[in-house]
Amino acid sequence: MDRGDLFVISAPSGAGKSTLCSMLVKELDNIAFSISHTTRSPRPGEINGKDYYFVSEQEFEQLVAEDAFLEWARVHGNFYGTHRAHVMEKLSQGTDVILDIDVQGAKQVKKRLPGAVTIFILPPSWQVLEERLTKRGSEDREKIKLRLQNAMKEMEEVTNYQYTVVNDVLEVAFGQLKAIVLAQRSKTRRVLASNVDIDALRPNPDSWFLV
Amino acid sequence: MDRGDLFVISAPSGAGKSTLCSMLVKELDNIAFSISHTTRSPRPGEINGKDYYFVSEQEFEQLVAEDAFLEWARVHGNFYGTHRAHVMEKLSQGTDVILDIDVQGAKQVKKRLPGAVTIFILPPSWQVLEERLTKRGSEDREKIKLRLQNAMKEMEEVTNYQYTVVNDVLEVAFGQLKAIVLAQRSKTRRVLASNVDIDALRPNPDSWFLV
Repeated sequence: MDRGDLFVISAPSGAGKSTLCSMLVKELDNIAFSISHTTRSPRPGEINGKDYYFVSEQEFEQLVAEDAFLEWARVHGNFYGTHRAHVMEKLSQGTDVILDIDVQGAKQVKKRLPGAVTIFILPPSWQVLEERLTKRGSEDREKIKLRLQNAMKEMEEVTNYQYTVVNDVLEVAFGQLKAIVLAQRSKTRRVLASNVDIDALRPNPDSWFLV
Repeated sequence: MDRGDLFVISAPSGAGKSTLCSMLVKELDNIAFSISHTTRSPRPGEINGKDYYFVSEQEFEQLVAEDAFLEWARVHGNFYGTHRAHVMEKLSQGTDVILDIDVQGAKQVKKRLPGAVTIFILPPSWQVLEERLTKRGSEDREKIKLRLQNAMKEMEEVTNYQYTVVNDVLEVAFGQLKAIVLAQRSKTRRVLASNVDIDALRPNPDSWFLV
């Protein structure tokens, strides 16, 4: 049985990560998003086990104590975590898993799963990023300021990632991201575990040319 | 300036390696075959510096003494070698280089250039390989026997290669091979050296959100 790979994907806000990751799941088979655990309340329409695993703070702390998370963090007073066993189960079923996560979380994951494939999505320039973030228009200046400051810090981490995709033209960036996933599926370990019947590659012991 | 990568591609005779490599050079930009040095005489139509670098035995031995080859071998009384400086020059110009080579040569190259990307092309089954080799009809039984025995030995080395492409349906195999090359071009080292103006990714020091 083939074993999937974990793709850890980070990007500053405004680089287009969510769009690119959604395209990946839509176009390719056998690839899925990791579903996080969180202590925040479900928003209208959110489904437990599909959007998130919604747990209490007590449950979350118990899981932390059990070292059940590949990474976890506290954001705006709520906890978010990636459950190791959930990820490992999908991988063992031959499914590739996408983990859409910030640079701090990516570091934690890489420490625990050194085989994870790390990808950073960059905007083509700072100017474009700033335009994308300010043009949304839905947020006040303080929030945008925070996003821009975070983006600057996050982008300094790009050299810690194995792959980098520059999202200038969406279709080009998607082609690059797809190639990274497909190439990973051609790793010898994966091919020999799935696509190939290794016994069918050996001749019969009594073949004429062996005599 | 971007630096290219060296793709070391091996396969048993009959796996379709030459066809696949030619497709790669035809469809992608910035990728070229490595041109070997050889002591054998040029065949009609072969051009020095294009098909091979044709040199005397004395010249070849001199190059071996100077450790000028990434790998070399003697085949049917003739010498063949891959000139390190020629390959490095192409790589430094940002060109990817394909080295179509047997498993022994690949081992030598990997030792000298650990960053080389190694790819093995497999037939879908032994039966298919045997059919492909016997159906050519142009060779006598002894030669086919030798090819089959070699193929068997070479395929045992597949686990030493990073990537494996199974050539069952040509277009599928080509898609996989292409993805491997394209993914390599998205390695962070390469992207930051070429596609991205790293300074353009930093805000002006006097940007409003930094104040």
